[in-house]
Amino acid sequence: MTGFVSFVSSGPGDPDLLTVAAVDRLQKAEVVLFDDLSAGPILEHAQADADLIGVGKRAGRASPKQDHVSRVLVDHAKAGLRVVRLKSGDSGMFGRLEEELTALRAEHIPFEIIPGVTSASAAAATAGIPLTRRLTARRVQFITGADVTGDLPPDVNMAALADPLATTVVYMGKRTFPGLAMRLIEHGLPADTPAMLAEAVSTPAEKVTRFTIQTLAAHLADTTSSTPALIFYGALADDQP
Amino acid sequence: MTGFVSFVSSGPGDPDLLTVAAVDRLQKAEVVLFDDLSAGPILEHAQADADLIGVGKRAGRASPKQDHVSRVLVDHAKAGLRVVRLKSGDSGMFGRLEEELTALRAEHIPFEIIPGVTSASAAAATAGIPLTRRLTARRVQFITGADVTGDLPPDVNMAALADPLATTVVYMGKRTFPGLAMRLIEHGLPADTPAMLAEAVSTPAEKVTRFTIQTLAAHLADTTSSTPALIFYGALADDQP
Repeated sequence: MTGFVSFVSSGPGDPDLLTVAAVDRLQKAEVVLFDDLSAGPILEHAQADADLIGVGKRAGRASPKQDHVSRVLVDHAKAGLRVVRLKSGDSGMFGRLEEELTALRAEHIPFEIIPGVTSASAAAATAGIPLTRRLTARRVQFITGADVTGDLPPDVNMAALADPLATTVVYMGKRTFPGLAMRLIEHGLPADTPAMLAEAVSTPAEKVTRFTIQTLAAHLADTTSSTPALIFYGALADDQP
Repeated sequence: MTGFVSFVSSGPGDPDLLTVAAVDRLQKAEVVLFDDLSAGPILEHAQADADLIGVGKRAGRASPKQDHVSRVLVDHAKAGLRVVRLKSGDSGMFGRLEEELTALRAEHIPFEIIPGVTSASAAAATAGIPLTRRLTARRVQFITGADVTGDLPPDVNMAALADPLATTVVYMGKRTFPGLAMRLIEHGLPADTPAMLAEAVSTPAEKVTRFTIQTLAAHLADTTSSTPALIFYGALADDQP
């Protein structure tokens, strides 16, 4: 008998930002595969005898290969178990969901995807900044600052990214932002465009700091902090404390 | 004594996609201001004696003016009440949050924002499509298909929108998509670029249909349906059933 896999988006970290459906699936799981970033109090919703397996990647540390994660997922489902694959934020957003879906489809294993709160929404809420604004930010875009090699993807669309009439959120972009900021300015985005660094989003250590794209680039070029962070820039509301 | 306002993102519609925090705030509210789209079963979390006030806008129907909504919000908070302002999806995304924040700040009324699941994440989850893909969709963007006049905003960035290496989600775009699709094709996006129409997202009537941008434009030019919908196009996973 084949099992069932629930891809459960765990939200940005605060257990209160789990959805009702996510809590339900965690409570019913026989096995939970989790990444480092989504662990901690969220796992307390699992039953005491559930099998909790860490398969996470953490920036700057050797981590299990993606095909290994897919293998573990398939093996547990084929054993007939109810499996929860916990993914931080919204699983469809920079969550490497595609590879795991492909592996399940190849084995005809039934699954569901529970969407969740992406980190950008949580950081914007903390900062009191809407991601869209009626006149000045009618487009919002999310990009990754690091491809599989750790660099900015080679095919970034600079016309899209250097647009002052959008809110842009860069995931995993601390290391590459100084280079990106230089290119944004070369492509005409004013150096004093508002920017924001949101660190340790949705944890007790959360910290949001205001910059311009130029001053944020200088700040990040000087920092060695490995705290996970999101970078916002563009038409951010500027009437904030 | 001044009250307190919780902007509560209600998610896309399915009450199971409320967050734990959203349920908590609804249970504690003395007043709930809600839009039509987020009503129904979600309001059942409110206490029996809570004051439920509909202030919603619905496409194609006359609706309360935004400044009226802000006024009602401020008045209830100034009366010292715990107010929940329910916003569908994620409140920061096309939720007209900015105007209401400005009104509260002007009156020094304390507030919090509870982020939520945006409709695009829910529709993508139902369709089994990640919003980002490791090689072919490293950028995801959300736009509105209708500005305050109901038309496509005049300042859309066509270089950003005609990018085959992004996933684009158009909110409130059914009426204007035929015109947008023509412009996308003029700007070099292939007419056979995958597209998807997600209707009545996160309700029992949810329906996801595959198209190309060209066939979706033709379909929408012929339809008079007013069912709320999201439009997806771009590097959508194409290995789906």
